[in-house]
Amino acid sequence: MRKATMQVTTHRPMELVDITAQVEGHLKESGVISGICHLYNPHTTAALTINEGADPAVQSDIIMALRQIMPFDLPFEHAEGNSPAHLLASLFGASEMIFIEKGRLQLGTWQKIYFCEFDGPRSRKVALRIMEER
Amino acid sequence: MRKATMQVTTHRPMELVDITAQVEGHLKESGVISGICHLYNPHTTAALTINEGADPAVQSDIIMALRQIMPFDLPFEHAEGNSPAHLLASLFGASEMIFIEKGRLQLGTWQKIYFCEFDGPRSRKVALRIMEER
Amino acid sequence: MRKATMQVTTHRPMELVDITAQVEGHLKESGVISGICHLYNPHTTAALTINEGADPAVQSDIIMALRQIMPFDLPFEHAEGNSPAHLLASLFGASEMIFIEKGRLQLGTWQKIYFCEFDGPRSRKVALRIMEER
Repeated sequence: MRKATMQVTTHRPMELVDITAQVEGHLKESGVISGICHLYNPHTTAALTINEGADPAVQSDIIMALRQIMPFDLPFEHAEGNSPAHLLASLFGASEMIFIEKGRLQLGTWQKIYFCEFDGPRSRKVALRIMEER
Repeated sequence: MRKATMQVTTHRPMELVDITAQVEGHLKESGVISGICHLYNPHTTAALTINEGADPAVQSDIIMALRQIMPFDLPFEHAEGNSPAHLLASLFGASEMIFIEKGRLQLGTWQKIYFCEFDGPRSRKVALRIMEER
Repeated sequence: MRKATMQVTTHRPMELVDITAQVEGHLKESGVISGICHLYNPHTTAALTINEGADPAVQSDIIMALRQIMPFDLPFEHAEGNSPAHLLASLFGASEMIFIEKGRLQLGTWQKIYFCEFDGPRSRKVALRIMEER
């Protein structure tokens, strides 16, 4: 098993950051041929997701839609004022799982792995574990 | 470990397709008694979920509610015009995990496994891995 | 591998119940030092999530926002009248995965594990498996 912590720097309040290359780098170093890659986000106003990477407009469209759906003007009690970011963290989820075969992540043709920033900009972390299965 | 790719054909723009029987078929053939079943959707306008299977109205009600919530009329930039489907893919998630005990999926009484089509109709795939644990 | 079923009693229609201490209790009894904890919710109007535990207002704010977003007044066909709860179950997801290191759950500083009740009050269950990895 390979364990690692990846660093992610975000630059905007809401942003999807492509971390696929970082994950692939750890996979290559691990030498694992067949197995599972688990990713975990330890933050409560951020998340992980897998979505299209070919057209960057998909990421900005997703954020545009979320800004429309989320009720930012409710009388929230949480003093930090980032309650919608906490809800988005739960809706997107804290972890992702990707199969590994022939030493490669088994992502779909258009899929990339994204770190989802909902209360940035911040310095963030993502925990990774690559496990071999035969 | 058993690896397989399941085929799913969808017939409508948005649809939840029950794939439980296909997954159970692979479990039976695997002979695994105790372990974990991981499912992975490689598409960026589709997802996987686990929800009620007893009343088909639950599936159509979920789609009715999503059509109400999603902002389909925003000035999206992604030229394919399916940005809401990409957001739904992230909200529902790309993978599911189900425990296996005594050779059976440990789904709840009312639970079935669904492939979620958000930009159909299309021919889709779901990757499956069944892992034995003692 | 340690298997267990945890009991959760909910007291309100919508509620996030912190189950972190129960999970930590099973981890301690398991003696597992390095591995993965998988949690699974077998109900179709409930879910699991990981979110902030320091300020209880985060949980109530999340529920306030969900009540605002969800369309409770659509002409749903499911006779039990809890279709929004089914949708929320799919949006939050049925399972969570947390890494284990040095015998401790690798939750982020502010993270706690929550059972999400969307159609309570009820008596609920959560299935747990703790798996050792070296």
